[in-house]
Amino acid sequence: MSNFIPNQTALVTGCAGFIGSNLVDMLLKKNWNVIGIDNFSTGKIEFLTFALKQSNFKLHKVDLKFEEHLHKLMKDVDIVFHLAANADVRFGVEKPRIDLEQNTIVTHNVLEAMRLSNVKKIVFSSTGSVYGDSYLYPTPENAPFPIQTSFYGASKLACEGLIQAYCEAYEMKSWIFRFVSILGKRYTHGHIVDFYKQLILNPHELKVLGNGKQRKSYLHVIDCLSAIEVGLRGSNDKINIFNLGFDGVCEVKDSIEWILERLKINPKITYGTESRGWVGDNPLIHLSIEKISSLGWKPTHTIQEGVESTVDFLIENQWVVK
Amino acid sequence: MSNFIPNQTALVTGCAGFIGSNLVDMLLKKNWNVIGIDNFSTGKIEFLTFALKQSNFKLHKVDLKFEEHLHKLMKDVDIVFHLAANADVRFGVEKPRIDLEQNTIVTHNVLEAMRLSNVKKIVFSSTGSVYGDSYLYPTPENAPFPIQTSFYGASKLACEGLIQAYCEAYEMKSWIFRFVSILGKRYTHGHIVDFYKQLILNPHELKVLGNGKQRKSYLHVIDCLSAIEVGLRGSNDKINIFNLGFDGVCEVKDSIEWILERLKINPKITYGTESRGWVGDNPLIHLSIEKISSLGWKPTHTIQEGVESTVDFLIENQWVVK
Repeated sequence: MSNFIPNQTALVTGCAGFIGSNLVDMLLKKNWNVIGIDNFSTGKIEFLTFALKQSNFKLHKVDLKFEEHLHKLMKDVDIVFHLAANADVRFGVEKPRIDLEQNTIVTHNVLEAMRLSNVKKIVFSSTGSVYGDSYLYPTPENAPFPIQTSFYGASKLACEGLIQAYCEAYEMKSWIFRFVSILGKRYTHGHIVDFYKQLILNPHELKVLGNGKQRKSYLHVIDCLSAIEVGLRGSNDKINIFNLGFDGVCEVKDSIEWILERLKINPKITYGTESRGWVGDNPLIHLSIEKISSLGWKPTHTIQEGVESTVDFLIENQWVVK
Repeated sequence: MSNFIPNQTALVTGCAGFIGSNLVDMLLKKNWNVIGIDNFSTGKIEFLTFALKQSNFKLHKVDLKFEEHLHKLMKDVDIVFHLAANADVRFGVEKPRIDLEQNTIVTHNVLEAMRLSNVKKIVFSSTGSVYGDSYLYPTPENAPFPIQTSFYGASKLACEGLIQAYCEAYEMKSWIFRFVSILGKRYTHGHIVDFYKQLILNPHELKVLGNGKQRKSYLHVIDCLSAIEVGLRGSNDKINIFNLGFDGVCEVKDSIEWILERLKINPKITYGTESRGWVGDNPLIHLSIEKISSLGWKPTHTIQEGVESTVDFLIENQWVVK
């Protein structure tokens, strides 16, 4: 019954990304065979240093947008962890086709390869952004029919729909995890990197998008991965959907305070006037984690610990932001 | 405030289709200028017989999948009615890329052309299929977060998300109408055509997909168009979403009875055993029409009248099914 079994073969897309590479390491340590796929557009080979030393890891440089032979890589695959995506919520407005291509169409390509090679299980990294501006907090998985506010959220919603249609049509099973922002080792984009980059250039000044009162929930990548394992072990429906988040939020202002303490600096901070940091930003993201918690999962890091460990990682790995 | 104003210029995609051509005729009769676009893959030039005689109608044969110059056609357009789509729910399982290409990607292309030419209003034909197998009947617009059961529904959901993201990003406005199946003059696909084709070939036998107990709501195309007008006149939010349907359902068996009465034949009927007619079919579609009704709209044709007028149209226009 459990879908989390050592000695299975997993194909991980986006394997050199933040969450992907952490997942790969975890699976390898638990004696899975792992086929990693990345186009290295944002993924980093350095994140695969451990993986590349393992005999149960194979890496393929593949661009999922164009790959017509993807199904050949899936011959002996038991389960696909599809994490490859444009993961930056903010740039949709400038380039409205990116999310369609890198998320929606790529997910179709992955599903089609699965169908052609008869792979029946997929784990998908969706996002709390699919709820748009929900009117229900903490937002449960069965919240009212959402209205999209970003190209990123819209594309992930489209991916979810595609996955569900494939499950219905071809007897596949899916585990769809709607993430809040994830923090921790190998974090490479998002507001902490943005702040950190600014402060490297000029430690005396920090400009913040939005009024700093956006309230968001964050989850440590270690807790994110343990939740994926718990979801796979404990839920075996045709379509399994789980929010992954932390039972609480912090203001952007709070996280800035923690970052500055860690960096031991005290810049002048300038806030914007808008409640949204950018077009499509959601001023409040707080997902209900009751469903995944009911399977026995519990996060082990607070939001503050997540922010601090991210800053520590960036300090020790300045090459990431260069 | 009203968005339904004569002498405006409308661009209608899918203008030679069933609903599109009826819409074009209505707009022309109400003194709109209409630019019609169709690739004639399923659209029929015969449906534009009236339109082509009018000086306020221009027709362009364009395939929206590939058109890079679409925005040039939108120069003086006030509002886009985007009806072009793969409208057949059933064939997704055989060709899972059709709905992605003809619905999701085409809708992106239309929105992108609107952005480039600064057109700010879009009317979109979505579908009750986006609710998947809802657990709430009659299903309201804010039903719980849906799970998709068909490639068609998934693609229309993706279109809705794209439209919403464009509205958020570029100050557009949208009217999204979630249709039940539409009946009436120029109906060219769906179960009545399927039955009619079978009965032309062999009036002694009728094979039905599913057990005939699927319960569905249907709406006459005239009522569909009047609802679009009412929605445009009466609702002016950034994103306006309305179910369009009939406050009641019929079983497939009922509609077969009406069809056979109209044709004055009495074939042997063979039903399937499944509650779904095909993979992705929803055994019950019944949308709440409270929201559009609250603006003063009321359907003027019963489901039975819709079925009968469709059969009458097919009898008088047998070329449609050939």
